[in-house]
Parts: sequence; structure tokens; C-alpha cells
Amino acid sequence: MSNSCRTPASTWCRLGESSWGLWEPQDGHFEYAWMDRVIARMHQAGIKVILGTPTYSVPAWMWKEHPEIFITRFGGQTVTFGYRQNTDLANPTYRRYCERVIRKILEHYKDNPAIIGYQIDNETSSGRAANPDVQAGFVTYLQNKFKTIDELNRVWGLNYWGQRLNEWSEIPPQQGILNPGWKVEWERYQQWLTTDFLSWQAKIVSDYKRPDQFITHDLAGPPRSEVNEHDISSSVDIVAVNPYHGTQDQFDGNGSSLQGDYTRSLKQTSYLVTETNTQTIGWDSKGQFPPYDGQLRLDVYTHLSSGANMVEYWHWHSIHYGQETYWKGVLSHDLEPGRAYAEVSRTAHELQKIGPEIVDLKRSSKVAILYSNDSYYGIEFMKFSDRANYRSVMQQLYNTLYRANVSTDFVFPDSPGLAKYSVIVVPPLYVASDELLLRLVEYVRGGGNLLLTFKSGFTNEYDTVRWTMAPGPLREAAGFHYQEFSSLAQPLALKDDPFRAGTDNAVSEWAEFLIPDTAQPLAYYDHPFFGRYPAITRNHFGKGTLTYEGTVLSDKLQEQIVSGVLQAAGLSGPDQKLPLPVRVKHGVNRSGKTVHYFLNYSSAPQAFPYAYGAGSDLLTGAAIAPQQQIMLKPWDLAIMEEN
Amino acid sequence: MSNSCRTPASTWCRLGESSWGLWEPQDGHFEYAWMDRVIARMHQAGIKVILGTPTYSVPAWMWKEHPEIFITRFGGQTVTFGYRQNTDLANPTYRRYCERVIRKILEHYKDNPAIIGYQIDNETSSGRAANPDVQAGFVTYLQNKFKTIDELNRVWGLNYWGQRLNEWSEIPPQQGILNPGWKVEWERYQQWLTTDFLSWQAKIVSDYKRPDQFITHDLAGPPRSEVNEHDISSSVDIVAVNPYHGTQDQFDGNGSSLQGDYTRSLKQTSYLVTETNTQTIGWDSKGQFPPYDGQLRLDVYTHLSSGANMVEYWHWHSIHYGQETYWKGVLSHDLEPGRAYAEVSRTAHELQKIGPEIVDLKRSSKVAILYSNDSYYGIEFMKFSDRANYRSVMQQLYNTLYRANVSTDFVFPDSPGLAKYSVIVVPPLYVASDELLLRLVEYVRGGGNLLLTFKSGFTNEYDTVRWTMAPGPLREAAGFHYQEFSSLAQPLALKDDPFRAGTDNAVSEWAEFLIPDTAQPLAYYDHPFFGRYPAITRNHFGKGTLTYEGTVLSDKLQEQIVSGVLQAAGLSGPDQKLPLPVRVKHGVNRSGKTVHYFLNYSSAPQAFPYAYGAGSDLLTGAAIAPQQQIMLKPWDLAIMEEN
Amino acid sequence: MSNSCRTPASTWCRLGESSWGLWEPQDGHFEYAWMDRVIARMHQAGIKVILGTPTYSVPAWMWKEHPEIFITRFGGQTVTFGYRQNTDLANPTYRRYCERVIRKILEHYKDNPAIIGYQIDNETSSGRAANPDVQAGFVTYLQNKFKTIDELNRVWGLNYWGQRLNEWSEIPPQQGILNPGWKVEWERYQQWLTTDFLSWQAKIVSDYKRPDQFITHDLAGPPRSEVNEHDISSSVDIVAVNPYHGTQDQFDGNGSSLQGDYTRSLKQTSYLVTETNTQTIGWDSKGQFPPYDGQLRLDVYTHLSSGANMVEYWHWHSIHYGQETYWKGVLSHDLEPGRAYAEVSRTAHELQKIGPEIVDLKRSSKVAILYSNDSYYGIEFMKFSDRANYRSVMQQLYNTLYRANVSTDFVFPDSPGLAKYSVIVVPPLYVASDELLLRLVEYVRGGGNLLLTFKSGFTNEYDTVRWTMAPGPLREAAGFHYQEFSSLAQPLALKDDPFRAGTDNAVSEWAEFLIPDTAQPLAYYDHPFFGRYPAITRNHFGKGTLTYEGTVLSDKLQEQIVSGVLQAAGLSGPDQKLPLPVRVKHGVNRSGKTVHYFLNYSSAPQAFPYAYGAGSDLLTGAAIAPQQQIMLKPWDLAIMEEN
Repeated sequence: MSNSCRTPASTWCRLGESSWGLWEPQDGHFEYAWMDRVIARMHQAGIKVILGTPTYSVPAWMWKEHPEIFITRFGGQTVTFGYRQNTDLANPTYRRYCERVIRKILEHYKDNPAIIGYQIDNETSSGRAANPDVQAGFVTYLQNKFKTIDELNRVWGLNYWGQRLNEWSEIPPQQGILNPGWKVEWERYQQWLTTDFLSWQAKIVSDYKRPDQFITHDLAGPPRSEVNEHDISSSVDIVAVNPYHGTQDQFDGNGSSLQGDYTRSLKQTSYLVTETNTQTIGWDSKGQFPPYDGQLRLDVYTHLSSGANMVEYWHWHSIHYGQETYWKGVLSHDLEPGRAYAEVSRTAHELQKIGPEIVDLKRSSKVAILYSNDSYYGIEFMKFSDRANYRSVMQQLYNTLYRANVSTDFVFPDSPGLAKYSVIVVPPLYVASDELLLRLVEYVRGGGNLLLTFKSGFTNEYDTVRWTMAPGPLREAAGFHYQEFSSLAQPLALKDDPFRAGTDNAVSEWAEFLIPDTAQPLAYYDHPFFGRYPAITRNHFGKGTLTYEGTVLSDKLQEQIVSGVLQAAGLSGPDQKLPLPVRVKHGVNRSGKTVHYFLNYSSAPQAFPYAYGAGSDLLTGAAIAPQQQIMLKPWDLAIMEEN
Repeated sequence: MSNSCRTPASTWCRLGESSWGLWEPQDGHFEYAWMDRVIARMHQAGIKVILGTPTYSVPAWMWKEHPEIFITRFGGQTVTFGYRQNTDLANPTYRRYCERVIRKILEHYKDNPAIIGYQIDNETSSGRAANPDVQAGFVTYLQNKFKTIDELNRVWGLNYWGQRLNEWSEIPPQQGILNPGWKVEWERYQQWLTTDFLSWQAKIVSDYKRPDQFITHDLAGPPRSEVNEHDISSSVDIVAVNPYHGTQDQFDGNGSSLQGDYTRSLKQTSYLVTETNTQTIGWDSKGQFPPYDGQLRLDVYTHLSSGANMVEYWHWHSIHYGQETYWKGVLSHDLEPGRAYAEVSRTAHELQKIGPEIVDLKRSSKVAILYSNDSYYGIEFMKFSDRANYRSVMQQLYNTLYRANVSTDFVFPDSPGLAKYSVIVVPPLYVASDELLLRLVEYVRGGGNLLLTFKSGFTNEYDTVRWTMAPGPLREAAGFHYQEFSSLAQPLALKDDPFRAGTDNAVSEWAEFLIPDTAQPLAYYDHPFFGRYPAITRNHFGKGTLTYEGTVLSDKLQEQIVSGVLQAAGLSGPDQKLPLPVRVKHGVNRSGKTVHYFLNYSSAPQAFPYAYGAGSDLLTGAAIAPQQQIMLKPWDLAIMEEN
Repeated sequence: MSNSCRTPASTWCRLGESSWGLWEPQDGHFEYAWMDRVIARMHQAGIKVILGTPTYSVPAWMWKEHPEIFITRFGGQTVTFGYRQNTDLANPTYRRYCERVIRKILEHYKDNPAIIGYQIDNETSSGRAANPDVQAGFVTYLQNKFKTIDELNRVWGLNYWGQRLNEWSEIPPQQGILNPGWKVEWERYQQWLTTDFLSWQAKIVSDYKRPDQFITHDLAGPPRSEVNEHDISSSVDIVAVNPYHGTQDQFDGNGSSLQGDYTRSLKQTSYLVTETNTQTIGWDSKGQFPPYDGQLRLDVYTHLSSGANMVEYWHWHSIHYGQETYWKGVLSHDLEPGRAYAEVSRTAHELQKIGPEIVDLKRSSKVAILYSNDSYYGIEFMKFSDRANYRSVMQQLYNTLYRANVSTDFVFPDSPGLAKYSVIVVPPLYVASDELLLRLVEYVRGGGNLLLTFKSGFTNEYDTVRWTMAPGPLREAAGFHYQEFSSLAQPLALKDDPFRAGTDNAVSEWAEFLIPDTAQPLAYYDHPFFGRYPAITRNHFGKGTLTYEGTVLSDKLQEQIVSGVLQAAGLSGPDQKLPLPVRVKHGVNRSGKTVHYFLNYSSAPQAFPYAYGAGSDLLTGAAIAPQQQIMLKPWDLAIMEEN
């Protein structure tokens, strides 16, 4: 039984998600009494229940009767009982069992007044299943997408190495495949398995759901390459996320904020935090770092300021046996109140008071990051570096914006409405259709400021390199072309340290041999051979600008480039003048009032002037005037609501 | 044919242990003539024979006829022909073959006067076999231990993740199991397989053994987590051990002494060294370090001073082919006398002379280490550090005592008679029953001095965390409680360097947030957050003391803590004042006289005053008077026998 | 379709090697039109064709119909579709398919005038196949070689560990085998599989080959331990090699020259370069280093000066999809001329002009390296170091000679005519028959200068250690014996720095305890224990000398030792006085004139006097006089032809 509750001022809790063996101890024999009792007690205490479908952890009898529903990976490795998320989501027997247990449970509880919503499964992914039915499904998926085997031969270039296929039945198991086009399609299909499974569950739950109830699914640590969160989100009423975060000296709100910004962007509205850490996490020593005083509370406000409408913990009390013994809860194993309990209690009581002022916060961002999961895979298949990759560049760009206190959305390759952003930041957009690239060109032409990074535009949507001069359709907007590129064996300096980065004046890993057509070089490599090529360029195109990074920048250099793009877009202001450890976030609440969060991610007190309109401090009730000094204690915060 | 002999003054040798293919070249066809000849020649030369059962290396025809007796590991990996110790010890076919070959050999040799004892198998372990019959045996083992499936569900907490079992037949293969309670039971069962196999062999051999013969088994490098040496030792008349040791600059007698102390403690009496290194060891470069002049001889006396009654080598001459080509013997491949031969010869002639004075040495220790193999596993399943573990803390504690020249026994969770020790040192006793913890409490109450380390008492005998405040039943004797703990991302200093350790004033890896009830803090962390908790405490309880380390200490700090505990227990004396590389060991010989070994583990000569009663130097025959200076050459020793 | 062409002044190209799926899109259905068109166009353009047999990349339908022909490795891991070189070369079904497709293609093209030669397969190896038929073949191979099972028991020492075999049918799968004699025989058998497969293909092709056509096979990066290039070369008319090389700051001609010298030595005549890099290589970041200006051209002349008669690239243009997207060709993906194209074009036009003067270059070497692949394996099975091995010592010796501008051949254990070399350099000749060792002894006796390294002579041709004092039959010529050896835990200095190597005065990894009989010690270890043994010795024996290295030398020390041996052999001259980055190579061309290559492997210009007879600079046409200064630009060269 899962039991993550916001407590002791708890109003919601999650129940039931990994308890199939209790619901159905024998094949076809169902029991509810154990849960009836729990829900009744919750209802009595005024705690609302999110009920989970129990499908991600199957009972032992199912392993005994149907070992074939468990995941088989490439090379024949099988995932066995003892793990969770160990089933082939496409297996019809598994689906049949899932449907029966879900319908039984929902039939039993559909009128229960304590239940306010349903969570389908938990942190679902396809687990890289390569079972025979998955392989068969992949062939069907390919037939639907490519229609003829000759089209597949053409798109994947299978004449190469003599691998052309003569008919659909010849498609071999994917395990030895090195062809990147083939591999990227397999990854899309794996993602689709999860999307399809959750959408199928959501439809079953919809047969029972009351109008006052919602369906959610809790995502694990997005962006997560093996699932397509954007597609999944269309199957649920509200998206939930389980953002585990660093603590002690590793806590700066960055991870929680990135996951929050990403999750909020999926449906462009508020979201739920269904799990986050209290005391410690992990199976072993990796996460045994209980938070310093104040960090638990500060993390809750980090989520709320990002647009969360709820924060639940995994979990209420620490478990005495099993895999997650050291994934400690609000209470330690002794079940007595302690330091974590006290801090959670304080926070919950604050929220009882100020909740209505901060719930349903509307965030508005002028900057977006274009996230391309296909590009992540395309680059992984043909790495340009052992140290840097799609994820590391994306993370560096997000961190740079986060540290600059710039509110950031995420957009996706098929997101409409790019023009509403002043700046779009693009991690290596390695896999992209002509259509997407042309939309970016139009974005710039129309006045947008695009910050584009190396490898963008190199391959099309099938991970096939373009036949035209790089960067393909982006060439005119980018104002340069290139034919060559090189790994960098050692970091290089930029000539004459144009951004005054001092010891951080370093680029590394990769260098494209950019030949400007109309672009202005912003920096050159300091090297006898590479020095003939610019490292960074900017092109004015239409009403906008396109800034391009042909190499991997140091954090300091990235900060300078991003800052320059933001300034050019008119996005600088007082938020960029706060002390380093202070983050600010803004939003509009249900009353239409503007709310400002000021959060101190450090063990030192921080002071700075308040740069917004007169209002009041929601936590203390004190009035706040423009330019008045705000004092924040270590790991503390202030929430100002403008009048 | 194995052929480890003490030579050239050899009196014993081991024969036959890995020669099944010679005894039984075809299924059911036995040959003895080859061995008859060898034993006859040994007898002629006055060399006594320990005959081994050949069961740990099966013939090729058995692989061909019964591949199913070879080990299958988790995930289906099979161990094939070419290795030794590659069979499933529980397999009935294998057992049948073993019994037949053992009975045939013993029937043939039972009256042979050259044979003084039998060695059953060799360095046996179950090899992590997961064959179907092992799995079936595990279920039976669980049924016998837990009686009902509901008890198993309860003890292992299987409701968690919905893994509850409905009947015994549902127990899945163990390979995916993450549940620590389940895993620790599997480890105990694996250990039991070896204990049972050896006990079964011993019973067969007993059918033939004459009253003047003994049964032994040679343990590999104890303590070895995959076997239970304490249980095994009850099946044999005398325990043997194969302690391979460091050489050149890595030789300090530590490894040989630890294994000796541990082996002597199993039956609390003398033991045999059946194998140790001569020239080089290992399959590859790891052990190609022949000893410096004197080290071979010094190692023999290291063993004898620890309580060994025999030292044999692996092996007589270096092998020209096969796996152990570089596991060189007393003779090199050229079979001509060399440096090793000369030193072995010198030592053997010394032993011919002084043997009766030093054999059957009675050791007596006032300090013991409590060794818990269950705790080793419990911590491995949920590691608190990548650098430290149960073994590293145990080793540090042993080393500290060894370097302090303190005679140390090992005791085990079920050892009676703890009260005879003045000090008991306890590596992290993570897995322990209430009964054991209460015996430790009684030990302290009765006047014992307990040095206890972090994580002790945290889980019960099923590796389940206790529901009570840590450290559970130890709380009153320890004088503190705690609810929280943290990994340490970096080492911390102790505040104000209370033990004057200078640059070694460092603790690391783990910190328990100790809250003293009655205990006296001995040291605090030097850190803004952790600094509120003591790192080390001492509590006076009853007539004794309990000193507790809530963190991992540097070697220097451990030395200080141990030294403090020893002093408090009145265990300091002249042995703690010897030059650093000199070890001293004491015992009482068969004549009731006290014998003192002084051993110099260094390339430099050492001098120090003799602090015991008048006597004589056994090796030189010279008289020795109290306070007379002893001079030791590099890698040399003196043995003083009091009058 | 493979398409490596020398272009734009291309005269030859390779076609067809990995295109089975196009030749035979369905089982038994053959198509030629696609290739007819390509060859016709090549012929039209005056480009000659080397046609490859397509056997190394099988079609998907073959996987579907006959998965059993794919490689199964030890432990059951199977190699699947998607890779190349994934078939069991011994499988009769695969052989049948191979023969049919080869005969079909050759029947079709045998009269085609564009085709000047055939390439059989590509970079073939047996892929460590352990399929059932491979195992059966191994048993047959053993029967043929050892005749009786008792002889096998004797040679491999199978009584040890009781592994003796009673009949051939008992030979188990090799996967668990630790016995080095057994393992080295398995490696020889694996090598034989490739030799046999290529010899079989060559015989089929011979049925169609016209007298004006040749058969070749392209070796991958020799020396390659898993194949026996020396045996393979006897099946082909001319040997080809695919030497990929370092670029940018990693380009010094060393790799290309080693592979060239080795390949030239196989048939002691000119060879072909069928593949080498143009822009970038590799699946990922490892080889994404396009050459600096001049390096592509310099590499062509590196090959020609080593004795190559052709240089082809892999490949003409970069591939847009598939595994080798980043293995870029002469053209980038945009298919437009670029930097690489320009440099290739320049070089090709030069070759059109000077080709006749430099083709069929006769090289003549006074120094040879004795290469023993068996010794490579023997040492790998029983490593003496994790850092050094047979390959690293061989490489160091080659590099030392290369940097000293000494022309070097390779000889093999069965090479006749050793006496023609003044110096033979021997990497650790660990596995060697008495016969070979005695030929080396005779070589020295007759006046040769042998530079021998540690471990030489230790085992016989079955990888069995000799029963005689090391170094066995070499003892008299070497003038020392030894019984012991040790790994070196840390590097040691040589006492008194006898070679004035300063900070490079260091030996490491391994030390043999040499006891001189007649040899003169050249250096001793600086160490209290090891210092009693010489590290390097020289013995005058008959009319020659034998210099012995009992340890691993630093590069600087190796340089001194090799230099000393060369001087003693009278092999020093002006080539040893050139600036460090300049290599010189000499040969005699078809007109009988001497040709001198001077190649500058650096980014700096180099100047030095010309030390040979009057002649002319082939590239510029300018005359050159003795002692005239030669000026080389960065990564440039000069070719002087004597009058």
C-alpha cells in the first residue's frame, strides 16, 4: 500500500498504487475490506483520497501462471519477479488481467465520496521490452508508418551493407541493429507503448469516473527519454510529477524547478507533485542525505512557485522491510515525531492559511526551451563526446536561465504559437523535419530571437543526414554554412577572450567549421588550424536574430551568450540583480493579483530591495513597499502579493 | 594431484584432492595404482599423508553425461567444465557420484599406515548455485523455518509493492528479489548448502576413519562471507586454513594473523595451515611478487605463533601447464634447488629441533571481536558508502588491535562465555536478534567494556528495521537514541581535534544524529549542521562501559579510541611500547611454559628490551634475562621460552 | 555498395563488397543490372574496378531462413542481424550460399574488361564463433594434430585438477577452459577458420579469373591477433591492407608505416592500400578529427614510401544513413567539393605525373622484428602486467626503430633467411619451439645481433613451461640463467643511470632475476633486493651478440639500448641525424634508381642537409646536390631520385 500524504495538516493522500497482490491474492479472487477500512478512516479524518490502479507491480501468482508477460530484453535477458514495472505493456494476457482488476476496484469504489481522483499506474515506461509481441507490434507500426518495404529501404538506406529487406516478414529482431534511422524509430515505438497503455487505462477508468473526479498519472523525473510526456498528458485531466531533488549542499531548487517548468508546460497549466523526498532516498548510500533545517519547507514553496497545486511525499512513514527501507518518510522507523515531521507540520499549517492566495498560480514566460527527445536519441546513437550530450547542453541552458531568474517554458517540436516567446533557446536540434526548421526560420523572420546550438538541422525526422549544405533549411536564417566539424581533443580558448571569462574562457568537445555567409562572428577559436573558423555567430534575419553556438561553451561563456540574447530581446530587469543564491518567481493568483516568491537557497542570510508594487508578505502579513529591503534567513523565503 | 609438502624436512603432505579424473577415468571404472605408488614412496621416506576427497573437480565424462549437475547462476548463466567448484552441491546425481568415489578410495586406503588424516573437499562454497533443485531446497528451507506463508509475508513485509504470496508454490526464482529480508535468508541457505555438503562427506569418511586418523577441511581465506566457518568447523576434528599473504613491501603478518586468530577461534584450539604461498601466486600479474629473503621463514613463525600446528605449501614444485603455472612452488619449473628451497629447508630444520617446544601453543586473549556475517550481508544489500562497509570496519578494528600487539579472539553471535573478555569490539552489528543485543547489554552491565560501532542494533535477525527508537534494545546501555543519519559527502573534522590526530583528525562516510540520554559525548563534528550531534560517545552502565562510534573514523582516530578502551580495561603494558614493526605474541606450550614470539616485519634491524621472565632463546639456545636487549635482523624473529 | 575510389584523378575503385542483399534480394533470385550500370559508367570514365565478393554482410532473408549460421559465442551469446561479419565461417549452409552468389557474380562479370581484380570478403575474422560445428571442427583439428587423446592429456597436462580426458568425445565446450595450452590451440584453430575460408573463396574465384586479373584480400589493421596474415597471404596474388591512422596532433606516420612494413613483409613485395581515412572515422566521437591541411596528402606518400602501389579511400562520399554516417568520405554529405576533395585532387594529379618513378618501390632492410602471435596469446593468458603486454613491447620496439629512421621488416617464426639481417629485434618470444630458439642461437653464432626481451624462451610451442633452467635453449647464447622473476610494484631506476636517461631512467612492470654465466651486465636495478640482479645484459656468442632486456624499459632507455645495438651492427648514418619530426625512407624504383622520401610530420617547417647522391626532386623537378639544404613546409615532403 502506498501512503504518501501531506501531513499532519494532510488533506489528500494517495492509496493503492502497488498493491495488486492484496487486491487479488489469488487469480480471480478479489478483496476490498482491507482498503475499505483505510479509506473510511481517511474520510473520517477529512483526508481526500487519490486511488491508484495497481498495475505496475503484479502478484506472484501471475509470474507463476504467465511468466511470458514479463519483459524480455534484447539478447534474451528476462526481467523477473521482485522488480516492479517488469511486464510487457503490450501483452494481451497482462492487459486482460489489468482490465479486470481495474474494473473490479472501480466498480467497488466508484461511489465512494472520499475519492477525488484516480492515478493510473505509476511512473510507467515500456522497460525496453523486446518480447515477441513487441517485435510483432513494431512491424505493424512500421507498416502503418511507411506503407511499403521499399519506402523503408529508402528512408533507412538499407542498401548500405546489403541490408535491404524484401518483405515485412524479414524484419529481424532489433537487437543487433546499428542503423540510426531504424533505432530512432524503435525508440519512438517504445515510447508509444507507454502512451498507448496509459491512454487505454484512462479510457477504462473513464467508464467509472464521476464528473467531480479527475484522472492523473505521475511522471518520473521528466524529461525522461524513454517516454513521451507530451503525448501522455493528453490522456489525463491533470499531470502529476515525482520530482526527487538534491539536499544539504546540493539543494538549489534547480531540479525541482526544471521538472516543474517542464510538467507545467505539458498542458500549460497547474500540476500535482505526487511524490518528493522527505528525509532520505535511494536503495543505498547515494541519497542518504537528510535535508538541512528549512530545506523541506523551501522545496514545497519551490514547487508551488513553479505552478504546482499540491505537494505529497513519498511517504508517510519509513518502511521496516523491503526495497525502500532507506527511502525514509515523514516519520522515521520509530514512528515518533521528529525533525522532518515538525518541518512538514509547520509548512502544512502555513498552507492551510495562505493556500487560497497561491493556488492555481498563472505563470507567464517570455522564454522557452525547445525540447526534442528525438534529438537526444539521434545524438546518443552517434555521440560527439563522452562528456557532453543533448541532455548536458539542455541542462546547461536551463541552468543558465534559472540562475538568471528568467521564467522559462518548454515547447515541443509540434507546439504551436512559438511567436509568443521573445526568445527560444534550442539545444542541439539534431533530428528535425524540414517543416520544424522552417517554422523556426519564420519565427526569426517574424522578430523572434533564436539561440541555436551546434548540430541543429543536421538530420531530418528519420535521423538521416541532409544532402544539402549544413545546417540545411536553417542556412539562410543562420547566415552561415559548413561542410566539416571536429571533436576537440582538448578545450580551446576563444581568441582574445571576447567575453572576459578569464579562466573560464574555454570551449570544448566539438567544433563546426562555420563559414559565414551573412552572419557576424562573435568569437573565434584560439588555435592555428581551428582559428580560421568562428565559434559563435549572430545573424540578423528578417525582424529577428539567430545566435549560433558551434561548440560546447563553459558555463561562464554560456551565461554571457544567454545574457546577451536576453538583453537584445529586452528581457533584463531587477530579477537579474538579486544576490546569487536568491531565486525569484512571479505569477498571478486566482484573485488576479501578482505574487512574487523570493527563495533563499543558501545557508547564509540574504538581503535585497523589493523591486515591485506595494503589497504584503503572505507568510507574515506585513506590508511591503517598493524598494523596501527584504531580509531572508537561511533556506527561508518570502511571498509578496501585490495589492 | 595436489602435492603440498613441508620440505625438505617434510613430515606431512597432502595428496589427491583434485584428481577425480585419475581415480575414475571412466564412469564407474576406478584406478588406484598411480596413487598406491606415490603413497608407498612417501611412506618409505617417512612422510605422512593427508588424503583428500577429490570432489571439487569433476571429470570431463561427468560434464558430458550430466551437464545438469553444473552450477546455473541467476539469469541462467552456467558454470562449465574447466573451472573447479563448478557443481551444484545439492544435486542428487552429483552426491551419488561423490559418495561412490569417496567410498571406493577409502575402502582401498583405509588400512594404509601412511595416511594420518583425511581432507574433505577443498575451499568449498556453494558457488551461488541457483539450479532448480537449489530453488526447491530453498522453499523447503523456508517452510521449515517460517512454517506458514503468512508468517513469511509478515516477516519479509511482502504486502509492500504488492508482493505477498498466497502459497509456497508461488515463491519465484530469487534472481530479481530486492527485498533484503528475502536476500539475507537466501544467503543463509547458500551457506547451509556448503555446511550440509561437508557434514555429509564427513559422515561418509567416518565410516572408514581409524581412531588414529582425523578429518579436516581447508577453509579459503576466512572470514569468507559465502560460507559459515563456525558451522562447518563442528563437522571436522581439526580445522585447516589456506592463508595466502602479501609479500615484499606488503608483508606485515597482518593477513596471516587475522586468518589464524579467526581459525583458532572456531574450535578454540590449534589448527592446520594446509596451503600458503612460497614464491608467487595468482593467474596473472597480481601476485607475482616472490618474498624478500627471510619473509618465507617469518611467515611460518607467524602462523605457529598464532596457534597453527603445521604449515604446508601450495605446492612442492611449479606446474608447467594448466591454470596455476604462475602459482609457483617451493621449486621453480626447472626443479632445481633455489632461493625458496633454501629458506624452506632452513626453517624446516629449525622446526625439527624446536618443534616440541612450540607445538600446541595455548593462546589466551582478553579481547574479542564479535563477527556477524549476517551484518555483512545486511549492509551490502543497503550500502551506506561505496568506500566503507562491514568488512572494512572490521578489518580496521582488527588491524588496530594487531598493531597494538593485543591478542584477539573472534566470537560469534551464538558464542557463549562473553564475560571472559575484558573488551569486546563490535563491527557494525546491523543484523542481530533482541536476544543477542540483550546479551551484549548484560555483558556491559556485568563489567565488560564494549566498543560498538554505528548501525549496530538497527535491524533484527530478519534484516527488518526495528519499530523502536534506534539503537533498539541497546539504547539504555548505549545511553543515547537517534532517529536520523546521513551519508557524509566529504570527510569532516572532529571539533577541536579532541584526540590530537592532526591531519588525521577526520571522520567520513556516515554520521548518526546521536541524542545522548546518559552517554558522555567524546567528540562532536566540526560542521554547522552536523555539529549539534556527537560523533563518539561513552556510557557507564552497570559495572561496564559502552563506547560508541557513530561514524567511520580515520585509522589514527580509531587507534586513539581503541587505545582508550584498552587502557580503561587495564590492558596496557610493555607490548604497546615495542618498535612499530615488531609484533609480539604469547602462549603457553605443552610443558606449561610461557613462550614469547618477537617478529620483525621490516627491512630494518630492530632493538628493544625484553620485558618478561628469564628464559632462553629457542632458536639460538642463548639465555635471556629481563630487560636484556633483543636485537632482530630484518625479517627475522626470536622465540623466548620462560624458565 | 562500397565505393572507395582514388579521385578525382581516380584510376581504380572497389565495388560490391557488402551488397549481397542487392545481388540476391530473395533466396536464389539474382540481380545484376544495378551493378552493370555502375561498372559501365566506371569503364566509360576510365576507372578500373576491383570487384568484391559480398560475403561478409548477409541478407535479411538468410537470417530469417537460417539463424543457425549466425555466430554463437561462448556462453551462448549470439550475434544477430544488423552487424556485418556475423556468420560462422565454417557453417556448411553459409558456405553453400557463399559459393552460389560468388559463382553467379563471377559468371556474369568474368569477361568484363573494366574489372582488373577481385577482392575476397573484407577484413575477415572468425568472430570468436563457438557454434556447434566450430566445436566439432576443433575436435577434428585436435585429432589431426595430436593423434591420441593421451598425447593431448600429456601436452596440456590435463591430470592437473583432474581434467584428463578419456576419449575425444569428452572434449567439452571451450568456454570455461583456463588451461593455457588448450586456449592457445583454440586461438590457432580460430585463426585457421579464417585462413581456410579465404583460401576456399580464392579457389572459387580462380575458376573464373582471367590471367590479367588478380585476387586480393584487405587486411584490417595488422598485426591483428585473431587472424594469421602470414598464412592468409599465401592464398592471394597481392595483399591489401586498410590502415586507418591518427590525424591532427596524433599524426606521425607511425601507424601507417608499421602496417605498411608488416604487410609488405608478408609476401616481401609491394601491396595495396584499399581503405584509409579521409575526413573522419568511427561510429562516435572517437575519430571525429579531420586532418590538418597537408596530412591527407602526406599520408598517401607515407604509404607509397612504405611500398604501397595504390591508395584508396573509404570512401568516395559521406553516407547519409546507416552505421557509418560519421565515417566521412572524400566528399561531405552535401556532395560538393571541399577541403578534403581539394587535397585529394592535388595529390592525385601529382601521382599522375610521378607515379611511374615511384611505383614498385623495392625496399631493403637490415633490421627485422620477429613477430610471434602465439606469444601474444601466451602472455595474454597469463599477464605479467596490466599496463604492458606483448603488443606494447612490440610497438615500443617498432616505434624506436621508426623514430630512428631505420628501415624495418617483419619476420615470422617460420621465416627462412634470418641471416640476411644485421639485427633481429625480438619482442617477448614467450611461446616458441626448440627449433625456433635454436635457429636464433645459430643466427647469433653466425654473426647476427639479437636484441631479445624478457620472457623469451619461457614456454614451448604448446605454451608449456620448459623443465630446464630459463631461458631454455637460449641459455648458452644469452649467457645467463634465471629461476625467479617478480612483478615490479613501482618503477625502479637503473643504478647510477648508466644510459644518462635522467628522469626517464626507469624500468617497470617485470624483473627477471638474471644470473650471468658469461653475459656482461649492462645495468643493475637500484633497489636493496632486486639490485643483486642485472636488468640488461649483453653476451658475445660465436660471431654475434645477444642483448637481453629482463624488464620493461622506458622509451628513452629503449632508445639507448636499440641505438647501441644498431651502432654495434654498423647501422648508424646520416638518417639518424635528421630533425626529430622528419622521417626518411629509401627504395629502388623500376628504373633501378634510388629514391629518398623525406617527410615532415609536424606543423613546423624543417631544414636539413641532403646526405645522398646528386639527383632531382620528383615533385618540383629541381636538381638536388649532396649536402644541399632541403626545406620542408609543415606536413610536406620531398622525393629525391638519384641520378
